[in-house]
Amino acid sequence: MVARSHTRILRFVIFALALILCGYILSKSSGSNILPATSTSSSSSSSSKDGISVDEKAKSESKNDDAKEALQQNKADSSLQSPATPGDLKKEFVGSNVNFQGGTEKATFVSLARNQDLWELVKSIRQVEDRFNRKFKYDWVFLNDEPFSDEFKKTTTALVSGTTKYGLIPKEQWSFPEWIDTEKAARVRQEMREKKIIYGDSISYRHMCRYESGFFWRHELMMEYEYYWRVEPSIDIYCDIDYDVFKFMRENNKAYSFTISLPEYKETIPTLWETTRNFMKEYPQYLPENNMMDFISDDGGLTYNGCHFWSNFEIASLSLWRSEAYTKYFEYLDKAGGFFYERWGDAPVHSIAAALFLPRDKIHFFDDVGYFHVPFHNCPIDQQIRQERHCMCKAQDDFTWKGYSCTPKFFTINNLKRPSGWENYAN
Amino acid sequence: MVARSHTRILRFVIFALALILCGYILSKSSGSNILPATSTSSSSSSSSKDGISVDEKAKSESKNDDAKEALQQNKADSSLQSPATPGDLKKEFVGSNVNFQGGTEKATFVSLARNQDLWELVKSIRQVEDRFNRKFKYDWVFLNDEPFSDEFKKTTTALVSGTTKYGLIPKEQWSFPEWIDTEKAARVRQEMREKKIIYGDSISYRHMCRYESGFFWRHELMMEYEYYWRVEPSIDIYCDIDYDVFKFMRENNKAYSFTISLPEYKETIPTLWETTRNFMKEYPQYLPENNMMDFISDDGGLTYNGCHFWSNFEIASLSLWRSEAYTKYFEYLDKAGGFFYERWGDAPVHSIAAALFLPRDKIHFFDDVGYFHVPFHNCPIDQQIRQERHCMCKAQDDFTWKGYSCTPKFFTINNLKRPSGWENYAN
Repeated sequence: MVARSHTRILRFVIFALALILCGYILSKSSGSNILPATSTSSSSSSSSKDGISVDEKAKSESKNDDAKEALQQNKADSSLQSPATPGDLKKEFVGSNVNFQGGTEKATFVSLARNQDLWELVKSIRQVEDRFNRKFKYDWVFLNDEPFSDEFKKTTTALVSGTTKYGLIPKEQWSFPEWIDTEKAARVRQEMREKKIIYGDSISYRHMCRYESGFFWRHELMMEYEYYWRVEPSIDIYCDIDYDVFKFMRENNKAYSFTISLPEYKETIPTLWETTRNFMKEYPQYLPENNMMDFISDDGGLTYNGCHFWSNFEIASLSLWRSEAYTKYFEYLDKAGGFFYERWGDAPVHSIAAALFLPRDKIHFFDDVGYFHVPFHNCPIDQQIRQERHCMCKAQDDFTWKGYSCTPKFFTINNLKRPSGWENYAN
Repeated sequence: MVARSHTRILRFVIFALALILCGYILSKSSGSNILPATSTSSSSSSSSKDGISVDEKAKSESKNDDAKEALQQNKADSSLQSPATPGDLKKEFVGSNVNFQGGTEKATFVSLARNQDLWELVKSIRQVEDRFNRKFKYDWVFLNDEPFSDEFKKTTTALVSGTTKYGLIPKEQWSFPEWIDTEKAARVRQEMREKKIIYGDSISYRHMCRYESGFFWRHELMMEYEYYWRVEPSIDIYCDIDYDVFKFMRENNKAYSFTISLPEYKETIPTLWETTRNFMKEYPQYLPENNMMDFISDDGGLTYNGCHFWSNFEIASLSLWRSEAYTKYFEYLDKAGGFFYERWGDAPVHSIAAALFLPRDKIHFFDDVGYFHVPFHNCPIDQQIRQERHCMCKAQDDFTWKGYSCTPKFFTINNLKRPSGWENYAN
């Protein structure tokens, strides 16, 4: 009897141990995808409309597993380890994780497009899908001042691995506000045509610039998102992007990012800076102490040097535009009328706002995606990056270090380490 | 004592059972990739130089698991089920298999290119990688009549997910054979220049056509392979190719395939058919009974209608060119001198050989890859295929059913079912 009960207990214990062993082995085999998945969703589910608080939370969270992630990073890309370069930031490469299920940030792609842009946009979409989104499966919002055609919707839906959404732009956001003197605006367009200023005589281009400046981020379809990636027709993405750039932005506390920067054509913005200075006088409280005024002005704010981020590529936090500071700033510019009486672009408007209203460390230069929009290329000059990311671009074409680029200034004023050999790509 | 020994035995038995359970569960978790891997390698390892025997073996093997594979196919693509269309063939879609480790056929990509073709070829490579090879990781052989530059090798190696190999073409395969009267050849080029025949005055183009006809498949780098996919610079692949096209060719007993077919420019091949007819008279034994003469001749072989497969895209079995029939045929044509005294292209030469020396059912039309080489497009006209394969092409551009295309004839003579609505894309 005793022996029998011993046996029963013994059997139970051994079987339990064996099962624990099974469980252990099985969990190991799929552990690689459980970790990031939960960590991501936990921090994104804790997100609120307030960008800052989200960032801080994510940051403190991420500290905990820095070691693990640094290790992953080393494995995935040993070339990005030299300190104080834009690449020297926490990146979670998913390449090795076959069970990766897609991104979990509240983020979307957004494209302002007309039906006739379809086939040029398709090329851009395919490259974004190829290099990034086929893994991350983020949504794509399309905005148009006219209803999208069935062909446009079917074709783009077939290409995008996330959910596609099609929005109509409210008429009042794509027309002259009642305070604009349309005859004066017409005279300006005529003058600019004579001066042969690019898009100087275009009405729709002005509506586009105004919309990208003040309204796309207010569209109802954008409301559920916190980050966006702006994609235009006819662009190229040159390299694999094997990490979630939206998660990257949040975890590294970034609010705005760029690939190419250059000086604006002054003829298109004669009074933009004066208007901005008046705004700053009225609302000094919107400028944080460590803003990046020295990127856009070489004389402490007296004049604008024209440097701006080329906004046809933008990965940014929507909370930047939703902030009280920017909302007021856009209103101020819009009332001044420069979108119509001059030809203010959304690039200088976004860039000035990012430089003035953000702490400088919230602005990021992407040195590893590779980007083209006629006529400028961003191509990693580091051979190892080009090799590891399967880049399809000529380093000689890279605009980053050329004389006309503003990015060298960005590196200088932020004490960022330039990639070795940058001098060889300066001309 | 008895009880103790009982216990020991009992403990052993239970622990063994538990471990077996572990093993069972673990094997299940990775079973999905074990199956295809072994089945593929078993049939490819059994391959011999003789294409036919390999094909037959593969075919009989594959019969066994037709049901399983048909099921996979249904899941992956329900649009390709209508009988007797080129799409109605066994395809093993790998999309759902996250553990898929890459293709296991003895196959490679091959590109004949000059160093200055690099950046146009890069665009082709990226698209092939994006749509197919990033999953299958097949090798890529590059051939050149001059040594490849470091830039060429580094850039292409960075882009190709398989192994890249760089071959130099032996001088004697890229120059005038001793039996060619070079003065006569020069006179012809002069005449063709005056007649404005495309490439009519080019020497290198003639060497290229002769090389693609008679030598690329003999290059030492090609020796280890049984199938190849020819890729040229500046092409587009429009759709996802989520099945191993090389395995598809072997398992479906195909030896040659095409995406676009059209009539050749007669001025470039005045005596090609006459020479071919003489060859057929001398070697009737090389023509199988069910050859496809009716694709290339509308009068039972008296004249050539010019129809040829556009060979800038080719997925084919190397055993077709290595066969005694083709080797003798090329020799015969080469001796006749038409590569230099006229301007015989590798397209009509390959096409005539495939049509004459292969049973007709070994020639396959790819209706689901989507392909572009200036100026012709192949784009699936079936909306469902375009959607499922994420195609980025306009069905209206599809050349397949246009009046100038020879593919409708291919469908007619082989009793293939045309896709519904083909008439709408005929003009």
